[in-house]
Amino acid sequence: MKKLEERIQKDGKVRPGGILKVDNFLNHQIDPQLLYDMAQELKRLYGGERVNKILTVEASGIAIAAMAGYVFGCPLVFAKKSKTKNISDEVWSAEVESFTHGGTNTIVVSKEYLGANDRVLIVDDFLATGAALFGLREICRQAGAEVVGAGIAVEKAFQGGGKKLREEGMRVESLAKIASMSDNGLEFEK
Amino acid sequence: MKKLEERIQKDGKVRPGGILKVDNFLNHQIDPQLLYDMAQELKRLYGGERVNKILTVEASGIAIAAMAGYVFGCPLVFAKKSKTKNISDEVWSAEVESFTHGGTNTIVVSKEYLGANDRVLIVDDFLATGAALFGLREICRQAGAEVVGAGIAVEKAFQGGGKKLREEGMRVESLAKIASMSDNGLEFEK
Repeated sequence: MKKLEERIQKDGKVRPGGILKVDNFLNHQIDPQLLYDMAQELKRLYGGERVNKILTVEASGIAIAAMAGYVFGCPLVFAKKSKTKNISDEVWSAEVESFTHGGTNTIVVSKEYLGANDRVLIVDDFLATGAALFGLREICRQAGAEVVGAGIAVEKAFQGGGKKLREEGMRVESLAKIASMSDNGLEFEK
Repeated sequence: MKKLEERIQKDGKVRPGGILKVDNFLNHQIDPQLLYDMAQELKRLYGGERVNKILTVEASGIAIAAMAGYVFGCPLVFAKKSKTKNISDEVWSAEVESFTHGGTNTIVVSKEYLGANDRVLIVDDFLATGAALFGLREICRQAGAEVVGAGIAVEKAFQGGGKKLREEGMRVESLAKIASMSDNGLEFEK
């Protein structure tokens, strides 16, 4: 998606260790018109899939998921990071490694809000190692929900998560795919 | 806002200890059309205030703030809960007591994204004791930003935060104001 690529080139900041900061427009300050345009692009890609639920994980995925829900005309659900290790019977849950912060989070979704009748589009701001996506897919598996695919704003393709998920047969559409990053800037996949 | 009040009556669940669960449509599963209608109502209330920034705090305020940003045509910023006590020079910060989880969180906003030229509408899903709002107002004070007011989905008026903020001269508009809650249900303020 050209508009997103241009914005990343203009306002994104590359940091050591494969970190791309897009705090200016995507995950601290957020440009809602860009969100809307991204949601429209996801609708173009997945509009035929009878999606009836958008699934993401708190916190930075919520904004784009909210707009996707609005454009698709269906509810969104965000998985919560659990503060306790005692997971109740009332939730689906999965373990997710955190790339940014280190350590492992447990993410949970109430069983009330995800089930066997759902056709789910998983939405997130970033895809790197794929940890969040694997976790959300696992939660859908537990719920018996059908994952029609993932819609990602920025994929850091060089970190391999997207490749692995696609090899396992999951449809993953990323609106900007970064092939490489260095101190001299970044390049998008053609 | 009648539509929100009706939804709370239909899908909200009162729990012991003054807890109102609106997980079904506001802060776990989210109805994006309702978000949009709430954002339109905030625009009707604050449309003349030249708002140029929406401010909220992660996580459950993000969805309504994103939609408000879209409707107001301005960026949103969400304050992050800091995991460390060592706050960098690059952020505004405030302490916020958590009503739901207990304890205190430090919330931070990058100095890059909030400053003296900003006219801020603070948006959140809930207002109870007002802890989050006091924290966000403090962050605006540090930044020299003007707070034009707050736009809240659900105010639990019986917990007194809104009253205190209004007495201090802050404009607080709540789309549903709950006067009382008990095992027999809840009543809205007239």
